[in-house]
Amino acid sequence: MADSPNCDLKSLSPLQLFERVTEQGDKVRALKAGKAPKDEIDAAVRMLLSLKLSYKTTTGQDYQAGLPPKDLVLINNGTTEEEDEDLVDPWNVQTSNAKGVDYDKLIVRFGSSKIDADLINRIERAIGQRPHHFLRRGIFFSHRDMDQVLDAYENKKPFYLYTGRGPSSQAMHVGHLIPFLFTKWLQEVFDVPLVIQLTDDEKYLWKDMTIEKAYEYARENAKDIIACGFDVNKTFIFSDLDYLGTSAGFYRNIVKVQKHVTFNQVKGIFGFTDSDCIGKISFPAIQAAPSFSSSFPQIFNGKDNIQCLIPCAIDQDPYFRMTRDVAPRIGQPKPALLHSVFFPALQGAQTKMSASDPNSSIFLTDTPKQIKTKINKHAFSGGRDTIEEHRKYGGNCDVDVSFMYLTFFLEDDDRLEQLKQAYTSGELLTGELKKVLIETMQPLVAAHQERRKQVTDEIVKQFMTPRKLAFEF
Amino acid sequence: MADSPNCDLKSLSPLQLFERVTEQGDKVRALKAGKAPKDEIDAAVRMLLSLKLSYKTTTGQDYQAGLPPKDLVLINNGTTEEEDEDLVDPWNVQTSNAKGVDYDKLIVRFGSSKIDADLINRIERAIGQRPHHFLRRGIFFSHRDMDQVLDAYENKKPFYLYTGRGPSSQAMHVGHLIPFLFTKWLQEVFDVPLVIQLTDDEKYLWKDMTIEKAYEYARENAKDIIACGFDVNKTFIFSDLDYLGTSAGFYRNIVKVQKHVTFNQVKGIFGFTDSDCIGKISFPAIQAAPSFSSSFPQIFNGKDNIQCLIPCAIDQDPYFRMTRDVAPRIGQPKPALLHSVFFPALQGAQTKMSASDPNSSIFLTDTPKQIKTKINKHAFSGGRDTIEEHRKYGGNCDVDVSFMYLTFFLEDDDRLEQLKQAYTSGELLTGELKKVLIETMQPLVAAHQERRKQVTDEIVKQFMTPRKLAFEF
Repeated sequence: MADSPNCDLKSLSPLQLFERVTEQGDKVRALKAGKAPKDEIDAAVRMLLSLKLSYKTTTGQDYQAGLPPKDLVLINNGTTEEEDEDLVDPWNVQTSNAKGVDYDKLIVRFGSSKIDADLINRIERAIGQRPHHFLRRGIFFSHRDMDQVLDAYENKKPFYLYTGRGPSSQAMHVGHLIPFLFTKWLQEVFDVPLVIQLTDDEKYLWKDMTIEKAYEYARENAKDIIACGFDVNKTFIFSDLDYLGTSAGFYRNIVKVQKHVTFNQVKGIFGFTDSDCIGKISFPAIQAAPSFSSSFPQIFNGKDNIQCLIPCAIDQDPYFRMTRDVAPRIGQPKPALLHSVFFPALQGAQTKMSASDPNSSIFLTDTPKQIKTKINKHAFSGGRDTIEEHRKYGGNCDVDVSFMYLTFFLEDDDRLEQLKQAYTSGELLTGELKKVLIETMQPLVAAHQERRKQVTDEIVKQFMTPRKLAFEF
Repeated sequence: MADSPNCDLKSLSPLQLFERVTEQGDKVRALKAGKAPKDEIDAAVRMLLSLKLSYKTTTGQDYQAGLPPKDLVLINNGTTEEEDEDLVDPWNVQTSNAKGVDYDKLIVRFGSSKIDADLINRIERAIGQRPHHFLRRGIFFSHRDMDQVLDAYENKKPFYLYTGRGPSSQAMHVGHLIPFLFTKWLQEVFDVPLVIQLTDDEKYLWKDMTIEKAYEYARENAKDIIACGFDVNKTFIFSDLDYLGTSAGFYRNIVKVQKHVTFNQVKGIFGFTDSDCIGKISFPAIQAAPSFSSSFPQIFNGKDNIQCLIPCAIDQDPYFRMTRDVAPRIGQPKPALLHSVFFPALQGAQTKMSASDPNSSIFLTDTPKQIKTKINKHAFSGGRDTIEEHRKYGGNCDVDVSFMYLTFFLEDDDRLEQLKQAYTSGELLTGELKKVLIETMQPLVAAHQERRKQVTDEIVKQFMTPRKLAFEF
């Protein structure tokens, strides 16, 4: 492709254009390194600039080396990009709608199933207690094969939980807690083993970061995860960089998945390009492998047929669609899934909270004052422009980030409903709603910090040591 | 590409055609699985047959799923395929010349250096003894940075040896011994640690073979390797499937290499296509990683700067050209290399011996009778058609496989020279030369079998246990 620079650039997709720019950049560097004639280098540089311009015109963004525009195939099933489509993949969540991603559409596109009242009632019957407010409030809204997990549970057949985190920085934000808080609840009500994968290898591959740093972040993040209150006798937390070098069972499952997935497939699922490193290209198998119980012979006594249930944010689903596709071909059960919505950024639900933008997030390390300032300053309001208008027309809870956060963190259903009515009617002002959020988040974060302080390196080591858990298999 | 079936197939390379057939095959299967309308399936099948025919016309071979025609970029540096070019890559060795591959040309193409008289003399001075006949006879004929290894050795700086084998079947043939016999000699004269990689994961990925079978072959092959006489105190043999799950240092180096090699690069080096599984695409990093001493913290006490020297057949060079390219970018020394020629098939030097064709090889399990029959029946002769012509014109040692084999296995220089003169002059007949080869190979194979019998599972376990060797670092 790099040899036919005159073909019509307009016909190229953003991804193809990205590749062209990358290749041309490589070419320029090669020419310079090879001390090619000046006019040859100049021509190549002109072509590079022209390609970068085409890229910007097409994508509306400046070209950034190593940061390809993600393909939209994930949620539009291979049709061409449409203006009103949400972008959802493991690295990006973008929508033009202030209410956030259209999750009903996403269920249809991903081919998953909605968590409806029937399923929630069935869970309630199975566990004999009221389901978590994340389920009742639609925060976990979609699933794959949860009914099969319940069948198994009702028939006294074992299953296990698997979730994870990419340790991209030292500090986690409150949004990162969602899957862990829910997983902890699942573990308690079903009383099952839990494995938590820290993909430090992934972060090393994707980010400008040393292996040592990625591994350090994994151990630091483990402390925040442990501080959620997991039971060390029932939970195994592992860093890929560590555990891959400890378990032949894990590597064998990785190679099995890698044999049954082609580059064409990961290109379609994740939008990888020919310029991506081979580590990225083969990584999906490493996130897939913990879905199979034989990756943990020390926990499951070598058994390879224990059903896995994965609670995760829906952006991780592509990994597990791939996994479910491969599973029967390598003689393993398909993992079941429970999908959550994204935790919105303070600035609004158009994108998810990101650890790399300090103002988009409430960090688990923030002081009460920082929490107050961030919420007051940055939390997108669904209130009206003036107090008069607000009193008259009321606020809009659907786009108000403070209200959204309370949906996640205020457990009292009656109080939440009161707040909603008062805000919608105009009785409650934005500042007052923010105050409720501040008063909810401050003690929650402070309590987390208190628990985290007690997580010593020794405790981390216990959680991260491959071992038998308190279950017989 | 699969959507434009009417473009001119003649303009496609063998590799592109292969991909088209593979994609069309997938499409047919998908249509059938999806119970598509019959006429749609029929049309797709017709297209598939037409593509297969084009493939056969272009390549002269039947299409075989999973066996792409290898790109010739390896040895012709990206120019188009030429009739007189040799095909040399890690999976294929083909030449139209009965004398075998043109190794001088290969050195120029690969950009390696010839092992000349000066280097051999320097090795002799360094070790204080006569160099191995594989060096004296040009069987190891090419190198990269061997002078640096000798510099280091003369300055009392340590280095280590790394070689390996892909365990594709239980039985090894005599050609497989070449790198091990030479490595054993190197280890003895330089007194250095040796690591031997058994790429059972590679064989699982490339062949129609279970993981368990690949691992079993690795252990069986280890017995044949150990039977060459390696010192257990100085040698570590490892199966990837085992060792990757034992050593975090090894996996970290693999991920580092994987971060610094793109799909474009492995496509260029190894001819991979978009239809290849992601395991194949990322595998080169697994063969690269043992070139770095930090992959063996138990041997090198965590040191990451010990020079590595790799004796191997020249077809493995692409892996290590890639490794040498990556090494400085991950702060590691480049491995040095010693390249051997290929061991020819009994039928002639146009291709190398292959374990998958029983008649192309003398196996290490062959009986004296089988050896005799195979040599008499299959060893390509450089003799004349009749005794009279032979006496008059003499035989041609350059194409005579029996003579070539003697070059590998008859250590006595004077005897070999006598045989050459007698055969070339017509004094010695083909049958007589074959008799010498039979009498050389029979005791050699019998002695190997005797030694192999003594290699118990316990001994294999000792060699394959990660541990400190008899060297201080």
